[in-house]
Amino acid sequence: MKPPLLLAALLLTAPAFAADAPSPGEIVAAAPAGEWVKIAPEDLLVMDLAPDRDGKARRVVIELMPPPFSQAWVGNIRTLAKAHWWDGLAIVRSQDDYVVQWGDPDSDDPSRAKPLPPLFATAQGDYTVPLDDSLRASWQERALADLKASMTAESAGQPAESRIKRDSYALTTQFVNGWPVASDLRTSYWPVHCYGMVGAGRGMAPDAGSGAELYTVIGHAPRHLDRNIALVGRVIEGIEHLSTLPRGTEALGFYETPGERTPIVSVRLGNDVPGLPLYEYLSTDSETFARYADARANRRDPFFIVPAGGVDVCNVPVPVRRVPAAQ
Amino acid sequence: MKPPLLLAALLLTAPAFAADAPSPGEIVAAAPAGEWVKIAPEDLLVMDLAPDRDGKARRVVIELMPPPFSQAWVGNIRTLAKAHWWDGLAIVRSQDDYVVQWGDPDSDDPSRAKPLPPLFATAQGDYTVPLDDSLRASWQERALADLKASMTAESAGQPAESRIKRDSYALTTQFVNGWPVASDLRTSYWPVHCYGMVGAGRGMAPDAGSGAELYTVIGHAPRHLDRNIALVGRVIEGIEHLSTLPRGTEALGFYETPGERTPIVSVRLGNDVPGLPLYEYLSTDSETFARYADARANRRDPFFIVPAGGVDVCNVPVPVRRVPAAQ
Repeated sequence: MKPPLLLAALLLTAPAFAADAPSPGEIVAAAPAGEWVKIAPEDLLVMDLAPDRDGKARRVVIELMPPPFSQAWVGNIRTLAKAHWWDGLAIVRSQDDYVVQWGDPDSDDPSRAKPLPPLFATAQGDYTVPLDDSLRASWQERALADLKASMTAESAGQPAESRIKRDSYALTTQFVNGWPVASDLRTSYWPVHCYGMVGAGRGMAPDAGSGAELYTVIGHAPRHLDRNIALVGRVIEGIEHLSTLPRGTEALGFYETPGERTPIVSVRLGNDVPGLPLYEYLSTDSETFARYADARANRRDPFFIVPAGGVDVCNVPVPVRRVPAAQ
Repeated sequence: MKPPLLLAALLLTAPAFAADAPSPGEIVAAAPAGEWVKIAPEDLLVMDLAPDRDGKARRVVIELMPPPFSQAWVGNIRTLAKAHWWDGLAIVRSQDDYVVQWGDPDSDDPSRAKPLPPLFATAQGDYTVPLDDSLRASWQERALADLKASMTAESAGQPAESRIKRDSYALTTQFVNGWPVASDLRTSYWPVHCYGMVGAGRGMAPDAGSGAELYTVIGHAPRHLDRNIALVGRVIEGIEHLSTLPRGTEALGFYETPGERTPIVSVRLGNDVPGLPLYEYLSTDSETFARYADARANRRDPFFIVPAGGVDVCNVPVPVRRVPAAQ
């Protein structure tokens, strides 16, 4: 009996074996420089946590959402970062397979809550973006093309569903300017709660939150939160400093005692952080991204026996990297 | 401007507010005792890790898959547990948003690998179960009922897609004897890679692994692994001891040095662990489970503004609990 190949098990990328078909990672690695889009430092939020028990630094880098998404909250977040409002606050919650959340531990107690600078505050949530005629037509055309491809596959003797793109939560999913979105193909579209996405916590409806309290997804995509909370960004580096935090033992993963919370040293916009690397994402309109997404849906690299024939939008993470030194 | 309600933010369950509609958790809590199914201790795998840095015990409880799923590997796992084979081995890999994996760190080196007891070894993977006529008819009927409900909703002026149950990877998803599965509605069905599912690592195809090397999902469901690896169980308690492990810094999240690995003290079948609590799961054929799944797809509890109208199979975790003392 052959022992399992430990290092080859569960390969995401298999450079040594991929003679016949490249893996998604290899496809991305071969993207031409022109397909990468630089992220402006002022669109980054840099959160430095207190060092870990071994004294190692813990930095989390978040990319803020561009227009037309959630700009009221993103504006608040810029104001709070410039005011150094989060400095000295803490990670207050870590719930397994759900979210890690940070902000003012005393926000529920008006006598102790940290005063906020003047902020935008929504009375009602507005978590979607109107679908204009051009976008609607384009996405409907894509949906039709998918259906045609499905029929072609069926007539060629392939399983029909292997070509249909389905989403469990919306009529279609797409990528807009580097961000995953869902749409009803009629009135609106909205960003979706994938792993690493950052949102603005809120109380009961119709409270819409201010952006002072943020969370990030550290488990299976909680897509039921789509259209119910404002998404404001995504973690592009250092999410492991949040996803590995001890889980809180109170209800919803809140920490039981102040000593369990992780202190936030500082939160700054990227242009206020000396020496911050430059980051870039792979254009979701690029040819490489299309091939990457297709490869995520149809794994042809040698480890795989049965390609899935489909993929959900949260299983196609948009590639983000530090700008290579050579460029 | 009102400060956000910290403790109310992102509620999964909101007992104090749910006068109008119960949350999924409240629905499950109200299930009659007869809808819970006891899990036989001999179907549990209990892994005790070395205590953490504060001396706290770390126990992970895994429920092994029942027939007709993956029984060749499950048989191997029982043999290995009875032989105490995993004792003294280690967690060798922790890859963010993917898997944590354990086994013999030296399995790649024949001169140092720990000898295995005689085991079943598959030459080709057989990761699916044939779909019999009765199951095919039943699931096709359900798919038809969903379609009819969708048309009814549409004619009532509700969005059509709000009633269609879709999956991105297969023609249908269902629950069989407490386990989430997907099917092509033609030839076969298979268990799916949700958060917390446990699988048998393997090398390159057509190697099918033995069960000596196991992993669990700690991120967004990697459904592209469905039908490509044998799923053998799920973590029912203590997954936080795996999901919070420091991520490995080598390729694929393997640990760079032996000192970073977490030692496994022992792995036993549940009937060999004195004092182990009894566990039970909510029957997936029960009325309560149907209401719970519907509530996961259509959140009507007060926090939510827009119910999703759908849910993916991995966002409907099967409720598992310790058998209450009162029963």
